[in-house]
Amino acid sequence: MSILERHDTGPVAHLRLNAPERLNPLSDAMLAALQAQIDALGEDQTIRAVVISGAGKAFCAGHDLREMQAGRQADDKGAAYFAALFERCAKVMTGLTRLPQPVIAQVHGIAAAAGCQLVASCDMAVAAEDARLAVNGVNIGLFCATPMVALTRNLPRKMAFEMLTTGRFIGAAEARDLGLVNRVVPAAELPAATLALAESAASKLPQAVRIGKRTFYAQAELPLDEAYRLAGQAMVENMLERDTDEGISAFLGKRKPDWSA
Amino acid sequence: MSILERHDTGPVAHLRLNAPERLNPLSDAMLAALQAQIDALGEDQTIRAVVISGAGKAFCAGHDLREMQAGRQADDKGAAYFAALFERCAKVMTGLTRLPQPVIAQVHGIAAAAGCQLVASCDMAVAAEDARLAVNGVNIGLFCATPMVALTRNLPRKMAFEMLTTGRFIGAAEARDLGLVNRVVPAAELPAATLALAESAASKLPQAVRIGKRTFYAQAELPLDEAYRLAGQAMVENMLERDTDEGISAFLGKRKPDWSA
Amino acid sequence: MSILERHDTGPVAHLRLNAPERLNPLSDAMLAALQAQIDALGEDQTIRAVVISGAGKAFCAGHDLREMQAGRQADDKGAAYFAALFERCAKVMTGLTRLPQPVIAQVHGIAAAAGCQLVASCDMAVAAEDARLAVNGVNIGLFCATPMVALTRNLPRKMAFEMLTTGRFIGAAEARDLGLVNRVVPAAELPAATLALAESAASKLPQAVRIGKRTFYAQAELPLDEAYRLAGQAMVENMLERDTDEGISAFLGKRKPDWSA
Repeated sequence: MSILERHDTGPVAHLRLNAPERLNPLSDAMLAALQAQIDALGEDQTIRAVVISGAGKAFCAGHDLREMQAGRQADDKGAAYFAALFERCAKVMTGLTRLPQPVIAQVHGIAAAAGCQLVASCDMAVAAEDARLAVNGVNIGLFCATPMVALTRNLPRKMAFEMLTTGRFIGAAEARDLGLVNRVVPAAELPAATLALAESAASKLPQAVRIGKRTFYAQAELPLDEAYRLAGQAMVENMLERDTDEGISAFLGKRKPDWSA
Repeated sequence: MSILERHDTGPVAHLRLNAPERLNPLSDAMLAALQAQIDALGEDQTIRAVVISGAGKAFCAGHDLREMQAGRQADDKGAAYFAALFERCAKVMTGLTRLPQPVIAQVHGIAAAAGCQLVASCDMAVAAEDARLAVNGVNIGLFCATPMVALTRNLPRKMAFEMLTTGRFIGAAEARDLGLVNRVVPAAELPAATLALAESAASKLPQAVRIGKRTFYAQAELPLDEAYRLAGQAMVENMLERDTDEGISAFLGKRKPDWSA
Repeated sequence: MSILERHDTGPVAHLRLNAPERLNPLSDAMLAALQAQIDALGEDQTIRAVVISGAGKAFCAGHDLREMQAGRQADDKGAAYFAALFERCAKVMTGLTRLPQPVIAQVHGIAAAAGCQLVASCDMAVAAEDARLAVNGVNIGLFCATPMVALTRNLPRKMAFEMLTTGRFIGAAEARDLGLVNRVVPAAELPAATLALAESAASKLPQAVRIGKRTFYAQAELPLDEAYRLAGQAMVENMLERDTDEGISAFLGKRKPDWSA
């Protein structure tokens, strides 16, 4: 049994965090498994959307605290290990935004600390009605600084500050109102609703989605004029795709596109 | 009959996209007409607010796809034409934010792709209850990369990503909740409600609004300390206006200001 | 009677703007008193959260307009005075975000212009149901440019623009929906609800909160990869705190932490 299960349904890859007895922590092994899948998916032309879920009763409870505490045995009290750990974790989180495919978090139970960061780092998220999310490291003396990077790029500032400073869990509906998840569904409908969103994205022309997603995050960090320059280049690149020509012609001719992919 | 009608009601200029049989596409001619109006309004001291609306059953359905496809006949398959088109379009969109007057989108029916970008690029927007908005180019293989620049500066990140990747239409109420429009009114009240908002902005001291709007977008791209430096300069400039002296004195004296303008 | 009263309840410092007959304006004296408290609190290891409130019927009505008008008597019509005033004010506002402790605005009655800026500049805010907030300088010919810097870092863009250009007051519930305040409570419960939020933040490990708050605002201005680098360093620094080791160990051992502080 793998710590990170993968099964594909057509063009959708499903990654399932699979250490349910410990609420699927982002241990060294889990981060390595995620990075390996990210590397593989980045090259995989057949996969057009990715869903990340958790086995058992929770999505993900965050970092592996036992493993982190064990890191303190080193001569430097763990400084080098911790630095490397957070670097590897950040590589996984930003790697999701750099995949050519849309990535959707399927959130149930608890998503806490780095588990909440994982939700925030996915392009989209669907949550079960009973899901609860928090960046609660502050409760044990460890402010969720790296989760904050992803969180603050999703939420209004004062609410992000409150979550980080109080450690409060928010419910799924509040998470949706705040922009942390796209939609909330009854728990029984969670896999189907997430898959429907994934399939909607997967049904689009993959070149268009790849160009678009890449440009989405790049332009977000640029001043307005530079953002338009980058996005204009993306539009030209997209227009010159053979299948985009076909897609527009088909639309104008009121017929289905004959896409090569 | 002009492709872009203008009529003024007092200090409010109304621009109406007027190619209703084709859902008011942003054709070369429409973009040129918009740019000409932007250039004129930038010099027009008598106009204090601008409303943009669409004739017929929709606000604007986006770019002119037939014209774009015709551009492919060139030796370079249209690369130069497309680059110039998106540059002209971006100049119109950013030009709206650089006008000294507040610009309000009056949205009814459909606002799609670059039509949705036009809504996002206006300073404010009022929508009819039955309005529907989308960045749906992805459905025909063309990711709405340039509309995304304006959209992502209005909406929470995950909802913007969903709209761009699924092409889903959102209703007016959802657009308001997400920050894409300021308010939603019954269709029959749309022109009056938009005009009321325009007249509210137009009733203010125009020098103050001009200084403020210019600083609004400039400071948004700066780090906090630099933003405060710029805004502080704007406040000083505004304070030294003769009519601001009069406005404050009148307020303190509990009388109406005697503004020169 | 001081223009800025302070009393402490355990680890929570309460600052009360105290010029109620004039709605607690941010006069030269008030700004100086706030700056002095900020300087003192920055060095105060015993205080772990700060609450800012207003005496009388309003939180704060903004700058002291009489004082500003008096500044016009100088040879330069007040240019140097105004520049210095807005610089001092910005130093107070950004100083709140640089304090090691979380700062919470306790908002009742009116919070207008620079008073609304004060709310926006606090890390969190709790409002009474009958509180009303505006950036209404535009009504007397002075666009709220410096308040805008704080406001636009809290609110969706189009709503911020509307508030600034129309001067419209929004109610407490709308302020919460927009992200300007964290929660709304009946007026009679305002002090208790604010104190509860302050005490929740004050109950956390102060080193963790200090590292976290400092990183919160710093990373917000950085591109994603740089933000992660900074936040990763913050996590390592936080992990190496003796009390964080104890906090995590206690959590894993299902016991209460024995924190030195």
